[in-house]
Amino acid sequence: MEVSGRTGTGSVTSRALRVLEVFSAAEPVLTLTEISRLSQLPLTTAHRLVNELAEWGALERSPDGGYRIGLRLWEVAALAPRGLGLRETALPYLSDLARVTGENVQLAVREELSVVYVERLAGRGSVPVLTRVGGRFALTPTGVGRVLLAHAPAEVQESVLAQPPARYTERTECDAGRLRQALAEVRRTGVAVCERQVTMDSVSVAAPVHGTGAEVVAAVSVVAHVDAVEAHTLVPLVQVAASGISRSLGAPSPAPPARSRR
Amino acid sequence: MEVSGRTGTGSVTSRALRVLEVFSAAEPVLTLTEISRLSQLPLTTAHRLVNELAEWGALERSPDGGYRIGLRLWEVAALAPRGLGLRETALPYLSDLARVTGENVQLAVREELSVVYVERLAGRGSVPVLTRVGGRFALTPTGVGRVLLAHAPAEVQESVLAQPPARYTERTECDAGRLRQALAEVRRTGVAVCERQVTMDSVSVAAPVHGTGAEVVAAVSVVAHVDAVEAHTLVPLVQVAASGISRSLGAPSPAPPARSRR
Repeated sequence: MEVSGRTGTGSVTSRALRVLEVFSAAEPVLTLTEISRLSQLPLTTAHRLVNELAEWGALERSPDGGYRIGLRLWEVAALAPRGLGLRETALPYLSDLARVTGENVQLAVREELSVVYVERLAGRGSVPVLTRVGGRFALTPTGVGRVLLAHAPAEVQESVLAQPPARYTERTECDAGRLRQALAEVRRTGVAVCERQVTMDSVSVAAPVHGTGAEVVAAVSVVAHVDAVEAHTLVPLVQVAASGISRSLGAPSPAPPARSRR
Repeated sequence: MEVSGRTGTGSVTSRALRVLEVFSAAEPVLTLTEISRLSQLPLTTAHRLVNELAEWGALERSPDGGYRIGLRLWEVAALAPRGLGLRETALPYLSDLARVTGENVQLAVREELSVVYVERLAGRGSVPVLTRVGGRFALTPTGVGRVLLAHAPAEVQESVLAQPPARYTERTECDAGRLRQALAEVRRTGVAVCERQVTMDSVSVAAPVHGTGAEVVAAVSVVAHVDAVEAHTLVPLVQVAASGISRSLGAPSPAPPARSRR
């Protein structure tokens, strides 16, 4: 049973995962030939792995004959505590925030050196946002990203600050020193305000969500049109929503506002 | 590279998937010993597979030292067109339906012989529902399930009707003949109304969502307190929401109401 040995076995698991990895939001349906090319696996290997993944339901045939990520994988992945689990807890608070503000509301976590969006409620008539549930984005130019980075381990902060971020607009902050200052400000005030960092017409206001050990496990933001709102009026709303989610997650107590600290 | 051969290779992929499969909503965090026991894999095999899955991010360590489904798997699974893809398209319509009715709103697809819930918006003060996003449920006692089953291939219908469903309440319909009639009624009227089938205090009203080829790809329902609403008043609301989602998915035209058929 185990004759293929450690290397062979590891190789098979990682190749199966590599097949799953080639699907993207831009290319959610792929042919076998495309899977083989994108995963850099020989056609026969790709064929066998695709069949095995399809048999279990990790992949499924699409009506046009290609392959797509299967519902069975989504069912298992729905158990990820940092994905749907977090989102289930947070949704009522996010809905309230969306209803009260009429703006875009986002919930995100950090995965390695990126933001991953766990939920996004689009405001009607609000500013368009570039994000997608399950999608990644840079940490430094977004409100949620700055909150998550401000509370990340020092080595994560250094890795992020060591690479100049992409310049989305002429205002995108790319200076490591000023970003470091901004992160300190986020820790001090308990809120991140990012103006015109991703698009010239948007502002995001974000606050941290705390877990059972008071650690920062997620961030909530409102993204609005920069000319349509005073960002400071959004701050308490975002903080109240973040505190509600934290409490539902079992955080020991709401994050104390800066001025009550000694 | 390929010396382990078809059987050995298939075995490894399926064992890796078997490791993912042992996680559940009831047990979202498991120790290595538990994974080994639940997957019926030897501890050394489980250990190796868990390490490989964790390295890629399909599993991650939880703060208490156990393993849980990882965010990376959730990111990939977010690409499942029948999961988050469908849900993204449907969410604005579901939110409208929830706001207008104040009741529970559900979006579901069929996977084999079960309903899988893709979205659920809980109504404040509405009747409690037993479902969970990513969770499965029986087809015959639920509104969404009856819609999906009514439009499923004949062999799926026969497989479902051949097994007597669980009796959730004294009213749960378990007779294959009457269920067959109910499914015909769903096809004729374009709507399913299920009273007191899962709990004695609930009624669900469901309508089909159509895909690009007019095939039924999902179902939408409102679940309300049976004494608080007249179910027939919910019918046009659910149908309008379902039609909106169908149109957004590229369905050729709204499903024609029964009375316009010849």
